[in-house]
Amino acid sequence: MTAYEEFQGYFAELNDLCCVINLLTWDARTQMPPGGAAARGRQVATVTRLANERFVSDTTGRLLDAAEAEVSGEGPDSYRARSVAQAREAYTLLRRVPTELMSGIAELKMVAQQAWQEARAANDFGRFAPDLSRMVELNRRLAEAIGYQEHPYDALLQRYEPGMTAARLRGLFATLREGIAPLLARAAPGSEAVRADFLDRDYPEEQQRAFALEIAQAFGYDLNRGRLDRSAHPFEISFTRDDVRITTRYNRRYAPAALFGLFHETGHALYEQGVDPALARGPLTTDLLDLYAVGGTSYGTHESQSRLWENMVGRSRPFWQLHFAALQRHFPEQLTGVDAEAFYRAANRVRRSPIRVEADEVTYNLHIMLRVEIEMALLEGSLAVADLPAAWNAGVREYLEIDPPDDSRGVLQDIHWSTGLIGSFPTYTVGNVMAAQFFAAARRATPGLDTALARGDYAPLRGWLTENVYRHGRAYSPDELLNRATGASLDAGPYLAYLRGKYDDLFPPQA
Amino acid sequence: MTAYEEFQGYFAELNDLCCVINLLTWDARTQMPPGGAAARGRQVATVTRLANERFVSDTTGRLLDAAEAEVSGEGPDSYRARSVAQAREAYTLLRRVPTELMSGIAELKMVAQQAWQEARAANDFGRFAPDLSRMVELNRRLAEAIGYQEHPYDALLQRYEPGMTAARLRGLFATLREGIAPLLARAAPGSEAVRADFLDRDYPEEQQRAFALEIAQAFGYDLNRGRLDRSAHPFEISFTRDDVRITTRYNRRYAPAALFGLFHETGHALYEQGVDPALARGPLTTDLLDLYAVGGTSYGTHESQSRLWENMVGRSRPFWQLHFAALQRHFPEQLTGVDAEAFYRAANRVRRSPIRVEADEVTYNLHIMLRVEIEMALLEGSLAVADLPAAWNAGVREYLEIDPPDDSRGVLQDIHWSTGLIGSFPTYTVGNVMAAQFFAAARRATPGLDTALARGDYAPLRGWLTENVYRHGRAYSPDELLNRATGASLDAGPYLAYLRGKYDDLFPPQA
Repeated sequence: MTAYEEFQGYFAELNDLCCVINLLTWDARTQMPPGGAAARGRQVATVTRLANERFVSDTTGRLLDAAEAEVSGEGPDSYRARSVAQAREAYTLLRRVPTELMSGIAELKMVAQQAWQEARAANDFGRFAPDLSRMVELNRRLAEAIGYQEHPYDALLQRYEPGMTAARLRGLFATLREGIAPLLARAAPGSEAVRADFLDRDYPEEQQRAFALEIAQAFGYDLNRGRLDRSAHPFEISFTRDDVRITTRYNRRYAPAALFGLFHETGHALYEQGVDPALARGPLTTDLLDLYAVGGTSYGTHESQSRLWENMVGRSRPFWQLHFAALQRHFPEQLTGVDAEAFYRAANRVRRSPIRVEADEVTYNLHIMLRVEIEMALLEGSLAVADLPAAWNAGVREYLEIDPPDDSRGVLQDIHWSTGLIGSFPTYTVGNVMAAQFFAAARRATPGLDTALARGDYAPLRGWLTENVYRHGRAYSPDELLNRATGASLDAGPYLAYLRGKYDDLFPPQA
Repeated sequence: MTAYEEFQGYFAELNDLCCVINLLTWDARTQMPPGGAAARGRQVATVTRLANERFVSDTTGRLLDAAEAEVSGEGPDSYRARSVAQAREAYTLLRRVPTELMSGIAELKMVAQQAWQEARAANDFGRFAPDLSRMVELNRRLAEAIGYQEHPYDALLQRYEPGMTAARLRGLFATLREGIAPLLARAAPGSEAVRADFLDRDYPEEQQRAFALEIAQAFGYDLNRGRLDRSAHPFEISFTRDDVRITTRYNRRYAPAALFGLFHETGHALYEQGVDPALARGPLTTDLLDLYAVGGTSYGTHESQSRLWENMVGRSRPFWQLHFAALQRHFPEQLTGVDAEAFYRAANRVRRSPIRVEADEVTYNLHIMLRVEIEMALLEGSLAVADLPAAWNAGVREYLEIDPPDDSRGVLQDIHWSTGLIGSFPTYTVGNVMAAQFFAAARRATPGLDTALARGDYAPLRGWLTENVYRHGRAYSPDELLNRATGASLDAGPYLAYLRGKYDDLFPPQA
């Protein structure tokens, strides 16, 4: 056995353990009876601890040293060299973080999620504040342990979006906000006249599921290597590329929630199912920082694929011109007297809502900007947790010109902070921006792509994405991947052009 | 932390890993998309290897030494002392078995199951013979490694039924065969006149499920700590007492398959759900020899509970007198003109069938005797694998006076040997025998038990079983448990009395 093969075998088992953690998580969210929760928490904790001990052990260091020597002559496109480099990077970072800090965050998560749920149900921020303060403090210590040049936020961002910094985000957000403002100013009032009464009818779950699954399969989701379940919060999760599962939730009174939610998760799933089989069970399909079996190179890159398939494909006019008839076959009574254009317009209304997960494409990023501003301030210490609700409400007013009705639908609406995620929100916006870059590049490279999409042939788009994004797993950093695939670094231009093209058509500027 | 607490914490994590193996298995059999099978096999192998390495390590030995010193003064009823003793026993046994032998069996299982499936589908024993020969050889080596006094079979039996031996089985089987023969001679011809046409009607799955689940809950199955799924082969599996899952399969043309199958699995589940919470995550809810999270003290004891609830309760006349009306509500058309007595009689027909899983209570143990005789002969070397089909057919003729139509429905019908199980078949019969002993003891100890059962009050029976069997988990050996609960060792008497009582009534001897 060569040194690389030994390294590979060792990480294959680590990936197995990460897949096991993913399965324990999937089962807990979709199948587990309520009574099993406490035992499940301990099972997850045990496997996570074993995997973590294994990864940060001296053995890993020795295997890395030997494997590095073996692959040192190989070029930058070698998956072997990339595997070793990725593992080394994560190893170096995690070895800097004290074990008790990681386990402290893991323990706090359990308590904090419970506190957050109770606080949200009772509309009482005070119940969550103490745990949130501790979570901010632990993340501040985490940032110090990881290390950074300019801003502690930069350190946390490395976990989710390698190469991203607070400074780059500020520039990106300023550009986006400027570009979005005029669209919002027209689209929000314009949307008030858009007919949408037919969305609020009784849409039985079984038909929602059937239609959405037809589309998911048309996009290319392979049910021989996947399955669809119901869960409180939709998600995608994988246990190698050969078992990639998605979930959704159904709202009988509002079918678009499940439909677009499922298109979104399908985008994530196509990424995972499209990873090169040669990368299976290796560091390039493992998020070693989070001990998570995942093939996408960053949160943002992953989100770019869910957004691309959900919005740029699934929320487009050609899509509904083609598929509305099928939707109508599933819901003949609910959609009597509605046509494709009316459905398309209803699905693209722009509204100033206080709730992020209900936001349309125009307002979505404003929700993110608010959250990122607040996370940075909390981490800097320039904002105290006690002052957070006021800062939140002021931010919503500033960005969206509305007031949240209460804290439950304001500062308490997102689960992220209670689960220890600080620094992950930007990746939603990074995903939107990258999606437009990838989509534009695919169009340039693929003559006839729009024609193919209009007739429901998704193979050319999926093929380009597989070739340029999916198959590489975590081999390249987001910046490398973007440059290789599109010839450019992260750039808000294509995304703003996409939004303008869509919303100028829907809500034309006054001539 | 005391030495015992350290021991406890260590084994709690081992139990977590065993629960994880169980979940990987459950998911593979009930939820996993087909494409995921290969990756799943590797995940199971990795966790099993880690758990095994952990258990047979020197660390375990040190922890055991220290814990033994701490609990040495405690009486035989102390769960602490029992935990340490159980762990020591399994540790001593497994340390005698070379690691490569265990992994050899594990690897062969994967290949052999595939070969068995193909052989059965093609009715071609030759395709399975080479793997079966290797499996017998590895089990022979396993028996030598474990050690035995009289017969190599004794060594293998220790894995499934501690305290059982080939000699004891031979005596038990002789008694049973003698007692069963006259019943079979009357019941088989008598059954030809029993009306059963209504069993072969269209029974939709949803109603089968609804009725069976009503009964399972009436028996005491707690769905807050369990769930029911569909699988190719019915089974029960647990991840601690707080998450105990059962499965069944539905035959639209033969409702009893799913109903009695579900009563059977419910019996297993009641055992697991009834384990004392104090034993959770400890050696007394872990089969350390097989790295399986399970609360029952042996295969036979576990089977005694599935048989008791399936047959002695669920296949009894009082049961159907009470519940037939509900069954009829679920299937009004299928059961028109049928009454409780007719259904009871149809469900208790006795037929000489070549298929074990279709066997009734009278012929079932004859199928087992045949298999055990063959297993012993294979292990001794007095029967060669090449001669197995002929020996099988001769045995079926001897025990059942029929000829199997082909090898698929003969020597190839059971999965057990291909999965490495040699020595587990006797536990089915041991389970039947123990079931009758427990049931008789419960009756003696519980005045009014029959009246309670007749009105569908299963709490007194479940209560006695919980108190005397379930709560102890694996604390006592099968012999100890039987003696504590019933005042006697394994004894065919109550079982034969039960069979005679039932079948003399159904098929009376000529006066």
